[in-house]
Amino acid sequence: MLDAFSATARLEKYRQEFPALAHKVYLNFGGQGTLSRIALGAIIETHKYLQERGPFSVEINAWIVQKTASLRSAIASELGVSPKTIALTENVTAGCNIVLWGIDWQVGDRILITDCEHPGVIAIVKEISRRFGVDIDLCPIMATLNEGDPIEVISQHLHPKTRLVVLSHLLWNTGQVLPLAEIVGVCHNYSGSNKPVQVLVDAAQSVGSLPLNLTEIGVDFYAFTGHKWLCGPAGVGGLYIRPEAFEKLQPTFIGWRGVNTNEKGELIGWKGDGQRFEIATSAYPEYEGLRAAIALHQQWGTPHERYQQICQLSEYLWLSLSKINGIECLKNSPPQAGLVSFRVTNNSSHKQLVQQLEKQGLLLRTIAEPDCIRACVHYFTLSAEIDRLVEAIKQMI
Amino acid sequence: MLDAFSATARLEKYRQEFPALAHKVYLNFGGQGTLSRIALGAIIETHKYLQERGPFSVEINAWIVQKTASLRSAIASELGVSPKTIALTENVTAGCNIVLWGIDWQVGDRILITDCEHPGVIAIVKEISRRFGVDIDLCPIMATLNEGDPIEVISQHLHPKTRLVVLSHLLWNTGQVLPLAEIVGVCHNYSGSNKPVQVLVDAAQSVGSLPLNLTEIGVDFYAFTGHKWLCGPAGVGGLYIRPEAFEKLQPTFIGWRGVNTNEKGELIGWKGDGQRFEIATSAYPEYEGLRAAIALHQQWGTPHERYQQICQLSEYLWLSLSKINGIECLKNSPPQAGLVSFRVTNNSSHKQLVQQLEKQGLLLRTIAEPDCIRACVHYFTLSAEIDRLVEAIKQMI
Repeated sequence: MLDAFSATARLEKYRQEFPALAHKVYLNFGGQGTLSRIALGAIIETHKYLQERGPFSVEINAWIVQKTASLRSAIASELGVSPKTIALTENVTAGCNIVLWGIDWQVGDRILITDCEHPGVIAIVKEISRRFGVDIDLCPIMATLNEGDPIEVISQHLHPKTRLVVLSHLLWNTGQVLPLAEIVGVCHNYSGSNKPVQVLVDAAQSVGSLPLNLTEIGVDFYAFTGHKWLCGPAGVGGLYIRPEAFEKLQPTFIGWRGVNTNEKGELIGWKGDGQRFEIATSAYPEYEGLRAAIALHQQWGTPHERYQQICQLSEYLWLSLSKINGIECLKNSPPQAGLVSFRVTNNSSHKQLVQQLEKQGLLLRTIAEPDCIRACVHYFTLSAEIDRLVEAIKQMI
Repeated sequence: MLDAFSATARLEKYRQEFPALAHKVYLNFGGQGTLSRIALGAIIETHKYLQERGPFSVEINAWIVQKTASLRSAIASELGVSPKTIALTENVTAGCNIVLWGIDWQVGDRILITDCEHPGVIAIVKEISRRFGVDIDLCPIMATLNEGDPIEVISQHLHPKTRLVVLSHLLWNTGQVLPLAEIVGVCHNYSGSNKPVQVLVDAAQSVGSLPLNLTEIGVDFYAFTGHKWLCGPAGVGGLYIRPEAFEKLQPTFIGWRGVNTNEKGELIGWKGDGQRFEIATSAYPEYEGLRAAIALHQQWGTPHERYQQICQLSEYLWLSLSKINGIECLKNSPPQAGLVSFRVTNNSSHKQLVQQLEKQGLLLRTIAEPDCIRACVHYFTLSAEIDRLVEAIKQMI
């Protein structure tokens, strides 16, 4: 009993770090994570320090280089990779763009993409197809939420001309976790092509929620953001590039951060690590915000401990929702991560329901395809918040 | 006398808005502008508001759309253009990338670039050349600082295959202002080619320092940042796209901010204005910081009034430096903007001199090519600060 009491007290104290958790039930971590006081404090302090010592000076410019390297290291420690493999970006989509525009496409090459990807990523793939004469294959992953095997689906849709598979590790719409290591294995071992099949992951939902070791998984490209499950500020993300895939990836959007110059300011070549794909001046104070956010998670527990807590809470949410008459969870077994998608079976509007809930201080979102509502729990969500959501929904439908 | 006294008092009060101006002499506005208390306050308040009402909710997402539109309007008012012509970007270089990768290059096309462009921009042009078989022409603009005619130089270097001219409006190294309207006229009226010659401007140094009416100038593309002369936070910039050039420019780095979707979340087309070239989630609180920074400048005076003040101060700086034995200003007549570049004639190291000055609280920077030191004055620089710099240099050389 004392242990449970201590755990509750620790959690309550921890939650006070997040102003967004006060006076409402926040279940939109997949849209944007809650910013902690310590992360906001780091942003403000960095702004002040830059003004105090610079904002532009020999000293400050060296300081920014050092802080930027520290952020790459913090991210790398969460992903199980070397800091050299990390390019900092503005967001997930920027990372996907770096990869998609960085491959030397030939007419007739093919991209395999799942039917659960974000419209922003689909838009890139469509433009690549138009510009370079690349063909797109779409594979039905959504249907494997409750039956069937996503590995098999990917495998069946590989084609001798497939050069890139684009998928999410944790699907943003249905909350399904794809068996990434196995899928990467299938792609890398595909013998039908004389060119390697690479894998680009939209990791918007998986970084900060799933425990990760990308080195072991062997994925080629993993594009992520700091502002969702890592609870950093908006505007900072990154891209992991597998060392074996590094040299062949061509920089597209280019700037001074990615190149080396000599004493005369002349270009002498690309940077030798992930910085090659970085462009120019960014919101550096937000970098320090993300670094503080990552440190806070790591103080709370290991990625595995945090993930287990997410799964316990999402199972409780899934179970509670499943028991409501008129609510159907998309998944017919407990979720493997923090996203729980559900629909109202009486044909009432999901949009209206989400707006009504928001008026009561319960923040969720709708998903367009499949038409549903998505609730997200983080490791510091309370079961009492889940109860409050369930009660509110019962009152409304 | 009373007027002069009032003006001094007003300026002293105004300068207190900028913490970076306290206890040092800041002359690096061309590197990064000083952030005002009101701009930092707007950033902090936005972070807090996002946490209070969101950070992700129906209400907050609509609020961000509205605030983002307000920033485009504020920027547009400084440039003399419609807000629809503005795409928000992370920095100047991102804007240059949008244009350079958005043209449907054909093998044998040519890009004309001046010999005073930033290495980050040169790096993009070189990669475009490599990927698409485009040839690069370099024209000697640096030599026109004190004699000769840059319009003539550009004109002479146009070629029947030239499709794009890349130049800065205000050269970052020598501080020269190029006669942009006339250069654009020469390019647009060039009869040697059957394709139009478009003009892309690196406006890193000109936005926030020169009074601008881009509609009158007729330039095709104008890439800028908010963190230099506009004194906004790092990480927010933009690109102006002339309405006549809009439809032919293809989006390259792509995301959800640039596309429209239907109720099923399916892509139905590009956004019809500058948003087409925006990608995904940005550091929105910094957007509010830039908006506050622009409002502060506009409260102080019109762009023309601010520019006149910059020119008066830079002339004083230029004159004072010119009088020092052992210092030679690159320009042999008063500067036309806030950048003053100079060199030490006794062969001592510019790098060491800048570091020594920085130790004394005088912040300047070196330029690699031409090898020199650059000091920047803004409209709120004090003549007493210029005197302090001159005295310090006299002591050192």
